[in-house]
Amino acid sequence: MATIAEKLQQADWKKEKHAPVIECPDEVKAGEVFHITASIGKEIAHPNTTEHHINYITLFFLADGEKNPHQIGQYEFTAHGESTTGPNQGPVYTQPEVTTAVKLTVSGTLLAVSLCNIHGLWESSKAIRVV
Amino acid sequence: MATIAEKLQQADWKKEKHAPVIECPDEVKAGEVFHITASIGKEIAHPNTTEHHINYITLFFLADGEKNPHQIGQYEFTAHGESTTGPNQGPVYTQPEVTTAVKLTVSGTLLAVSLCNIHGLWESSKAIRVV
Amino acid sequence: MATIAEKLQQADWKKEKHAPVIECPDEVKAGEVFHITASIGKEIAHPNTTEHHINYITLFFLADGEKNPHQIGQYEFTAHGESTTGPNQGPVYTQPEVTTAVKLTVSGTLLAVSLCNIHGLWESSKAIRVV
Amino acid sequence: MATIAEKLQQADWKKEKHAPVIECPDEVKAGEVFHITASIGKEIAHPNTTEHHINYITLFFLADGEKNPHQIGQYEFTAHGESTTGPNQGPVYTQPEVTTAVKLTVSGTLLAVSLCNIHGLWESSKAIRVV
Repeated sequence: MATIAEKLQQADWKKEKHAPVIECPDEVKAGEVFHITASIGKEIAHPNTTEHHINYITLFFLADGEKNPHQIGQYEFTAHGESTTGPNQGPVYTQPEVTTAVKLTVSGTLLAVSLCNIHGLWESSKAIRVV
Repeated sequence: MATIAEKLQQADWKKEKHAPVIECPDEVKAGEVFHITASIGKEIAHPNTTEHHINYITLFFLADGEKNPHQIGQYEFTAHGESTTGPNQGPVYTQPEVTTAVKLTVSGTLLAVSLCNIHGLWESSKAIRVV
Repeated sequence: MATIAEKLQQADWKKEKHAPVIECPDEVKAGEVFHITASIGKEIAHPNTTEHHINYITLFFLADGEKNPHQIGQYEFTAHGESTTGPNQGPVYTQPEVTTAVKLTVSGTLLAVSLCNIHGLWESSKAIRVV
Repeated sequence: MATIAEKLQQADWKKEKHAPVIECPDEVKAGEVFHITASIGKEIAHPNTTEHHINYITLFFLADGEKNPHQIGQYEFTAHGESTTGPNQGPVYTQPEVTTAVKLTVSGTLLAVSLCNIHGLWESSKAIRVV
């Protein structure tokens, strides 16, 4: 039977607009706050319409040597031009981009999962070293 | 590098307390509302404490023949005994169980993903036939 | 300046389709699991379309004598007919109705807040006695 | 009976650590992407522990002259040191701070609501002019 695992798509974000991009330093200090930016459409813009948009990006951290990832946060993009006068006429749009502030104690891997409301789940990752 | 896909654990819910259970009819009518119950710990109770609990269950539907799943809903279990007088002394606990109402137009697969705050991601699935 | 507090609308759910309905026993036993159903459109159906739908219902509990409510859970209704072939042609719709399982230790008030993507925030409440 | 409206607390963020801070330009161009930072604890740090933390910040926009706010996004801070070896020993903490990217077509008010897991709901607002 189908699994979500096999539906988590991966691609080069320079060629595929749905692939999440994770941006942060390669190396951070233990316990010091740093910022992570996760976004969709950095190279090729994703439509941002009432009918077709990114619902959310979820960030995880897998510490080196640990079995399971911890969820860092989930960032939901709710506004896509909805309005009482019809789709795509509303006053506000949220772009699929978020920056969050994080502290780590050990090295590991950052993982981003995003959902497009009609093109499913996408994931990407980035190693991060704690010194 | 690690992926979320490879961290989505599967197990028999009768032996593993983290595996989601999906309950609904095997067969429903097209366009008619029916109920889906998704839960954790149906056979072996999961701890439900401030320090160790299920954060959410997310439900997806993959229509037969389609490439990508649609997200049905995400059900977050927020209350785990938190309080101003210390952990596990609060007045309310949410059990990791949810029932939602859904309409389908075609047959496919229901998929549930859950997150334990310290034991990661788990998934399960159930086929459903639309007649 | 405007506040969210003044934008939380209240109405009789028998006359206003956006007002949340909270259903559960009036009296429960301390520490025993019971079910709460929260829904929109029990009397007058709410449209459930790609362009106009209920995003979520959030449940809170305010213990008698406490200053602040605890969040019980947030239940997001994600599927509203979105599809790659256009709005309202997708295979799955989530109705704005959810049942969750809860344990209380003291009496208080259940509070539901819902968001319509174009008609804003609505709230309602129900007293519950713990014996 | 109690309402969520009356439980949405307001305070000066320079004196009260729970009050959300909204930072963005006072004036933006119609349809141009700009950034909004919403945070808790800018002046007085909020504890960020497994037992006491900020669950989320939700951002809304109320267009001048409109009746109801639109939800811009909800940003959930999930990691607070949870771990299999006990509370506050995990490898990752999310700070209650988020930056998101938004486009507006008209002037209005930005509104932020945050939830502390034990001290309830807090809100704040900021006017923004579209030229």
